[in-house]
Amino acid sequence: MHQYRSHTCTDLRAEHAGQTVRLSGWVHRKRDHGNLLFIDLRDHYGITQVVCDTSSAVFPVLTDLRVESVVTVTGKVVERSAETKNPRLATGDIEVQVAEVAIQSTADVLPIQVAGDQDYSEEMRLRYRYIDLRREQIHKNILLRSQVISYLRQKMIEQGFTEFQTPILTASSPEGARDFLVPSRMHPGKFYALPQAPQQFKQLLMVAGFDRYFQIAPCFRDEDARADRSPGEFYQLDFEMSFVTQDDVFAAIEPVLHGLFTEFGNGRAVTPAPFPRIPFDEAMLKYGSDKPDLRNPIVIADVTDAFKGSGFGIFARAIEGGAIVRAIPAPGGAEQPRSWFDKLNDWARENGAGGLGYIQYVVGGAKGPIAKNLDDERVALIRERCELKEGDAVFFACDKPLKAAKFAGAVRTKVANELDLLEKDVFKFCWTVDFPMYEQNEDTGEIEFSHNPFSMPQGGLEALNTMDPLDIKAFQYDIVCNGIELSSGAIRNHRPEIMYRAFEIAGYGPEVVEQKFGGMLNAFKFGAPPHGGSAPGIDRMVMLLADEPNIREVIAFPMNGQAQDLLMNAPSDVTEKQLKELHIQVVKPKQIKAGEARAATPEASAGTEKTGA
Amino acid sequence: MHQYRSHTCTDLRAEHAGQTVRLSGWVHRKRDHGNLLFIDLRDHYGITQVVCDTSSAVFPVLTDLRVESVVTVTGKVVERSAETKNPRLATGDIEVQVAEVAIQSTADVLPIQVAGDQDYSEEMRLRYRYIDLRREQIHKNILLRSQVISYLRQKMIEQGFTEFQTPILTASSPEGARDFLVPSRMHPGKFYALPQAPQQFKQLLMVAGFDRYFQIAPCFRDEDARADRSPGEFYQLDFEMSFVTQDDVFAAIEPVLHGLFTEFGNGRAVTPAPFPRIPFDEAMLKYGSDKPDLRNPIVIADVTDAFKGSGFGIFARAIEGGAIVRAIPAPGGAEQPRSWFDKLNDWARENGAGGLGYIQYVVGGAKGPIAKNLDDERVALIRERCELKEGDAVFFACDKPLKAAKFAGAVRTKVANELDLLEKDVFKFCWTVDFPMYEQNEDTGEIEFSHNPFSMPQGGLEALNTMDPLDIKAFQYDIVCNGIELSSGAIRNHRPEIMYRAFEIAGYGPEVVEQKFGGMLNAFKFGAPPHGGSAPGIDRMVMLLADEPNIREVIAFPMNGQAQDLLMNAPSDVTEKQLKELHIQVVKPKQIKAGEARAATPEASAGTEKTGA
Repeated sequence: MHQYRSHTCTDLRAEHAGQTVRLSGWVHRKRDHGNLLFIDLRDHYGITQVVCDTSSAVFPVLTDLRVESVVTVTGKVVERSAETKNPRLATGDIEVQVAEVAIQSTADVLPIQVAGDQDYSEEMRLRYRYIDLRREQIHKNILLRSQVISYLRQKMIEQGFTEFQTPILTASSPEGARDFLVPSRMHPGKFYALPQAPQQFKQLLMVAGFDRYFQIAPCFRDEDARADRSPGEFYQLDFEMSFVTQDDVFAAIEPVLHGLFTEFGNGRAVTPAPFPRIPFDEAMLKYGSDKPDLRNPIVIADVTDAFKGSGFGIFARAIEGGAIVRAIPAPGGAEQPRSWFDKLNDWARENGAGGLGYIQYVVGGAKGPIAKNLDDERVALIRERCELKEGDAVFFACDKPLKAAKFAGAVRTKVANELDLLEKDVFKFCWTVDFPMYEQNEDTGEIEFSHNPFSMPQGGLEALNTMDPLDIKAFQYDIVCNGIELSSGAIRNHRPEIMYRAFEIAGYGPEVVEQKFGGMLNAFKFGAPPHGGSAPGIDRMVMLLADEPNIREVIAFPMNGQAQDLLMNAPSDVTEKQLKELHIQVVKPKQIKAGEARAATPEASAGTEKTGA
Repeated sequence: MHQYRSHTCTDLRAEHAGQTVRLSGWVHRKRDHGNLLFIDLRDHYGITQVVCDTSSAVFPVLTDLRVESVVTVTGKVVERSAETKNPRLATGDIEVQVAEVAIQSTADVLPIQVAGDQDYSEEMRLRYRYIDLRREQIHKNILLRSQVISYLRQKMIEQGFTEFQTPILTASSPEGARDFLVPSRMHPGKFYALPQAPQQFKQLLMVAGFDRYFQIAPCFRDEDARADRSPGEFYQLDFEMSFVTQDDVFAAIEPVLHGLFTEFGNGRAVTPAPFPRIPFDEAMLKYGSDKPDLRNPIVIADVTDAFKGSGFGIFARAIEGGAIVRAIPAPGGAEQPRSWFDKLNDWARENGAGGLGYIQYVVGGAKGPIAKNLDDERVALIRERCELKEGDAVFFACDKPLKAAKFAGAVRTKVANELDLLEKDVFKFCWTVDFPMYEQNEDTGEIEFSHNPFSMPQGGLEALNTMDPLDIKAFQYDIVCNGIELSSGAIRNHRPEIMYRAFEIAGYGPEVVEQKFGGMLNAFKFGAPPHGGSAPGIDRMVMLLADEPNIREVIAFPMNGQAQDLLMNAPSDVTEKQLKELHIQVVKPKQIKAGEARAATPEASAGTEKTGA
């Protein structure tokens, strides 16, 4: 018989009764019934009940053993009596009567318990992660993560993609966030950087003719932690394709995402492919966001015309000053008490709005302060425009266009949550498309890139040369699930002459383009294919599937919020010898000025798929 | 029709004749036949010949185009005449008559050519890697690498392993080589390190109960480049298993390796599983190496007894002083001229030996200076011991045991190369097992760890307490292919009491163990399973399969020998602001003392699978 096990702890069934077996695992629970000792023996695969009575020589050995000790037991499989069978356990029909035991490892008193649901501080959990990871939910989450990644790989390969590794020690790049730097030993004073994303490498692979690249890519940004962002490193499903249109990119990745969420969604419905494509302008109008949560049935409407020149003076005057009015329906909201509307009004003020006006459509007409000041046609127009019925209410956001749109989006989310309107048990996907190439800086009036200066402008060079920059759209898109942006992506600008012109419009001369982005630009001068891609965030997708709001529940060895690895004690001191070899010395700050160390370079927030941004 | 292509450049066959198709790709070659222009259009998948004649409007456009420009052509598929068909090309039965062309990207004058076999300097190839990677052989190598990794993943999953990601930003660890360090922004004066291997994490995953881990793991060592070692990062198939014996580890990985080399070996024969297990002592005796190349048929034998007290005074006296004599057969070597033996003698002297004595077994007896001084029984004994036949020669290595063994190994390799004895077109695998746990330092006489202090000693605590340390073997093993070590591996020592004792024998008190290896040690105190694994080097396996002696031929974006990324310009200068945020400043060396910056910490060369060591 094998030294450690003939079966795993999930294998044994009634048909094994009578066999002598060997199991190894952790002592999950012990139940001492006086003359009988029951142990739940746990391994990666499951739990099996083993039992011994006082007459056995191994009884005192097992009795003395602390939970989480590791043992190998040998004994006979016995079918349990009908009333002691445990249908919740795969092995619940049997137990193993221990004849021999070998102790592989004795456990000290545990800092955190494995069995049970007790909560522990994040610090304890991360410091003793190797115990924490034995607990059922996190153990399952980490396996789910592995399965998700394995599935993604398989599907991408089926879609004709090839996985490549791109360098992890590379150059500091002009991409949004702060780099992690690595001092060079051989080149004093020079530094490598860890990649914020393999953006340039994947584009170079296309220039090198590889056609369809993907990578489960580790990415690194030295940014502060958030619930959905681990400090340090994260993974994205990075992909890129040559000779494709935007629709080809969508068609390639939609089956992968739909398949993933169907396979691991525990029966939750998934938007069938093709996912809805929502132009940016429409998204901002109807959902007040470029990341629409389509579980939310509320659709915003513009009702500026209903208030223009109306008796509701605040809005009417604001409209004269360039404001717009957006209407946010609250289905069934008319039945809510006054206090509910007051509370929402307070919430709006706390969030920087002047207040939150509303109309209630009730039996026989409309109620509320605004309705009183609007004539019936206007009240009816709003009702019609918003497709409201009796019993519904509607809120209004009145402000400068962008502010009004965004605030309307916040109200839409708030109202849906208040009224519990979000569709349950569903993954609602959509693409936001047709992002504007440029926007006008509200302070300076200058034309700036809206998102990614390396996206191909729709209409190409001709559009750049002939259209109002603010009307030009880019072949840039976001993939959104349940209101969460999984990634941006784009058809890239692979033509130097279009790139020079695109930057010129944003006020950058060719020397700036060449200095900052010379690497890519030069590559494009030796024959570059049209190409595009995206990079959905892995951690984010696993969080959605596992229904976990904190990213640390889906990573085996995460850092804490202070970017520390409590298990390995990182970051840590190093020796003077090491520093000397790397030609650096430490300069401890005398005084840390709040916020100073946190300034990024937003100007260059560009070029990279913004997974998790 | 699709904007860029209806088919790839490898798709079209005679049966497509008459269809109008669209292809996109690079202009690989142009042949101007006066009134006809032939273009080999290349994409990732293949090459298709496109043609146009002077009457066509696109003729001048295509004529002006430089090779490596990217174009989309539309036209009719025409079957070639029998005499112009090209059987070496998948699409060689047809050509496409261009009716329309769209230029996607025009190429400047190329720094390196894609078509043809011209050699370029490493610097040019790496600086223009995106062009270099279009060349046939390297393009194929990089794809092979991807296929190898994909195959390994699939096989490991089939073997019941799960892939996990372990942190890349982690702690400086006591493992052999020099770490890459990453200064922490949030913790002034402290540093992360990039992992030399996920050794500790994979063991912690076993302690966390995950049972069978693997990872295509990026590893980082700040060591100087070699032909078979890329500076900076490399990949290994890292794996670990719980509740296993050494044989279980072998049984898990052998089908993976055998399958891999069979699948991608281009018909070369692969040692069937189970691979031979060769104890370390036997390997040193028979092959003069712990990495035996079994393609080499020569087997070394000990012939100390044949020379002890013999008339060949040099050897006889050396044996009295503690030397041994190893015999290295040279099959067919007796027929070589005297000059051949002289040349080998010179080679031996250049390599630090006193010379290279030999006997030729010829018709009627033995020849050579040694044979003259040995009586017939001794000459016959050697012949019998080495299983020599008429026409064979045999060389001798006489020295202190370890030196004699290693020199005999070098002679074995040299002779096999000289006589062209290596078996061709074959991958010969073996395991070297039963490595000694300890060895005696030849200078100090002290007992030291031979290889990995974290391997489980055979016989456990009892062996440590009762045996001569130099007789104790470890459950440590190397996997070797064609004389190249793919990885070491071990059954780990998971029991704190055995670890304390093992270190005590090597002269380290418990405080040293706790200080240096406290993380693992503590984890083992809360219930650790017996576990073991290994970590075959990916780059090395791809090199073997691709038959490439230089690692840079199997990595898409390698650094050069000076650890520079010429494409991205890494390492590079960073801003003062970045340094300030990281609480460091640069101290440029006034004078670099040769070798100083290269000292590692050999004492701790431990704990990690030594892929590529």
